[in-house]
Amino acid sequence: MRTPVSHSSKGPLDGYTIIDLTRVLAGPYCTLLLADLGARVIKVEQPGVGDDARHIGPFVEGDSAYFMSVNRNKESIALDLKSADDRQIFESLLQTADVLVENFRPGTMEKLGYVWEALHERLPRLVYTSVSGFGQTGPYSKRPAYDMVVQAMGGIMSLTGQPGALPTRVGVSIGDLAAGLYAAVGTQAALLQRERTGFGDRVDVAMLDCQVALLENAISRMQVDGRVPGPLGSRHPSITPFDVFRARDGWLVIAAGNDAVFRKLCAVLGLHGLIEDPRFLTNHLRCLHHEALKALIERQLNSAPCADWQEVLMSNDIPTGPYNDLAAVCNDPQIQSRQMLIQVQARNGQSLTVAGSPVHVGAHRTPLVRQPPQLDQDRQAILASIGIS
Amino acid sequence: MRTPVSHSSKGPLDGYTIIDLTRVLAGPYCTLLLADLGARVIKVEQPGVGDDARHIGPFVEGDSAYFMSVNRNKESIALDLKSADDRQIFESLLQTADVLVENFRPGTMEKLGYVWEALHERLPRLVYTSVSGFGQTGPYSKRPAYDMVVQAMGGIMSLTGQPGALPTRVGVSIGDLAAGLYAAVGTQAALLQRERTGFGDRVDVAMLDCQVALLENAISRMQVDGRVPGPLGSRHPSITPFDVFRARDGWLVIAAGNDAVFRKLCAVLGLHGLIEDPRFLTNHLRCLHHEALKALIERQLNSAPCADWQEVLMSNDIPTGPYNDLAAVCNDPQIQSRQMLIQVQARNGQSLTVAGSPVHVGAHRTPLVRQPPQLDQDRQAILASIGIS
Repeated sequence: MRTPVSHSSKGPLDGYTIIDLTRVLAGPYCTLLLADLGARVIKVEQPGVGDDARHIGPFVEGDSAYFMSVNRNKESIALDLKSADDRQIFESLLQTADVLVENFRPGTMEKLGYVWEALHERLPRLVYTSVSGFGQTGPYSKRPAYDMVVQAMGGIMSLTGQPGALPTRVGVSIGDLAAGLYAAVGTQAALLQRERTGFGDRVDVAMLDCQVALLENAISRMQVDGRVPGPLGSRHPSITPFDVFRARDGWLVIAAGNDAVFRKLCAVLGLHGLIEDPRFLTNHLRCLHHEALKALIERQLNSAPCADWQEVLMSNDIPTGPYNDLAAVCNDPQIQSRQMLIQVQARNGQSLTVAGSPVHVGAHRTPLVRQPPQLDQDRQAILASIGIS
Repeated sequence: MRTPVSHSSKGPLDGYTIIDLTRVLAGPYCTLLLADLGARVIKVEQPGVGDDARHIGPFVEGDSAYFMSVNRNKESIALDLKSADDRQIFESLLQTADVLVENFRPGTMEKLGYVWEALHERLPRLVYTSVSGFGQTGPYSKRPAYDMVVQAMGGIMSLTGQPGALPTRVGVSIGDLAAGLYAAVGTQAALLQRERTGFGDRVDVAMLDCQVALLENAISRMQVDGRVPGPLGSRHPSITPFDVFRARDGWLVIAAGNDAVFRKLCAVLGLHGLIEDPRFLTNHLRCLHHEALKALIERQLNSAPCADWQEVLMSNDIPTGPYNDLAAVCNDPQIQSRQMLIQVQARNGQSLTVAGSPVHVGAHRTPLVRQPPQLDQDRQAILASIGIS
């Protein structure tokens, strides 16, 4: 072979330094993604208090499991950005950095004296990523926001839940996590741009914008159908059958994406009559008659347990899967094999399972380089690295 | 000023070329993110048929709104990868490309003769991104998967919905969209790595892995609490009050993230008695007594409409927001001001609103450079660009 398959054991972002002023979830999730990929992330925290997430439960003898789940592979230094001495340290850190990430409410960085335009003049290669509730511009810019606020405002909650039932949140903090993801995309795009132009740039990601971006075809569906879409329980809005179904002892998923798979599904379930049933001939017709179809499928599924049905469906190459709770997720052989569960340790030595990184580049697999840091844990090493002792 | 604030009107990824073999949603969402950021995305589709998404409704006179919502800013060429002539064109395209993205089931690219190791030997700088249901490795690798399957298997559905009620899907295809996002993160990380090493790398993103990565602290919560978490309706698992509440004429969000905001909330709502109520003194206690607290808050909110309450809450800087349906989302001044709704056009000239990109780098704002392409629309221009006429 002319060239070996290249992969750095340190990760694809080895060599990049991120100064991380972020707190709680959206910002820290962005820097977690970059840290897992090998970037050096220096978490700058408020002295004495630290990231607010350190105070959100549940706790393992004083260590926040919430904090631990999104701060591995980062270093911590406590700096008071209102003190002259600490600001000098912060300045030295910025000199060595490729990226500054913050998720304060718009206006706070300006009050602290770190306006993008001025920083850009001083440090033209620095990428400056801001994650905020509503963005750096627009009428709501300075309003406070949390996950819950943007989930409800951005429309995803109006599509989630059972028809006619109570408002339902997406069961994870998708308002924060999505913003962290898009911010990681934007930060890396700015770094790639810098390779061409030599200049850093400002990345402005709003949690609310990201919720809208996740609506994908729902907005255009509304215009074509002329109806404001509501929640649909567990079924897909435009593909049928594509849903969770009840078998004798529980639930399973069947996702029949096209006519061929639907006909095979009918045959496998022994529902040969449905293949020629005029209500179910096309996906469009099946969507119109989804309730009747679901009832017929579930009547059949009731004759055997989930495991049996899944075996039959899988052996016929029909997309299916279990409806897993988190205990089942943690026991799933595929998820284990993909190293999607990694162990971090609390101060008392107790180990805690957290989700790994799903971004596999070459042979690089979420290495646990550093445990989630205690506040200010890396002060001496960080200062030494910038020539302050 | 020494250096101007730099921003390319063409976008930060201007100059990068992506060969895009992806279909339906997860892969196309990845390349949409890159296209919106300025990369040249050449969509290679099956002759006559094209991307499966072209056949998923709803339709605007034959043009799929589903397809149109995630394929703007891309070029299209139809190539039969089983024909020798077309394979030669495909080879020429790869020669000019920085990235190849595909979301076939693992094994398909190998059958087509495009094994990563061999391609890497021939084109050592090419980044090869694969998005699949379960990943390139592990016991389930070759199984078919769709959004629904991984949403149910990955655990997010077990956390979404009303307690004790029916299984509930996240109302958008988060199984696909999350994979597209993580794949864009991995693709850019590999491009940044190439700047250092000179070599492309293989990016392997599994939809199921991505669902696990979105569980953030839920896995560690399960271990600390010793309970498998279930769905919680609209409330946050570890912060109270952080929920959707009913006012006289509808629903609104209140997110009181800490004790100080909670006390202010009580004062603003005229619920002074709750401040010293031993059930609600700390966030932990409020989580234990969330039902009682919600009832007390809603009794008070019932005295006025949402709009009035939101004005009062906002003027006191308490995080709040409306529970918007998609019609309200499209009318929201902040979302409009952020240019999160853009217009694309169907063949018949009808214009369709779709979500824009939330990744703002410098002055770059989701430009609509190209309408969603008709199948094979850019054939001549693409062939000319690689010297074939």
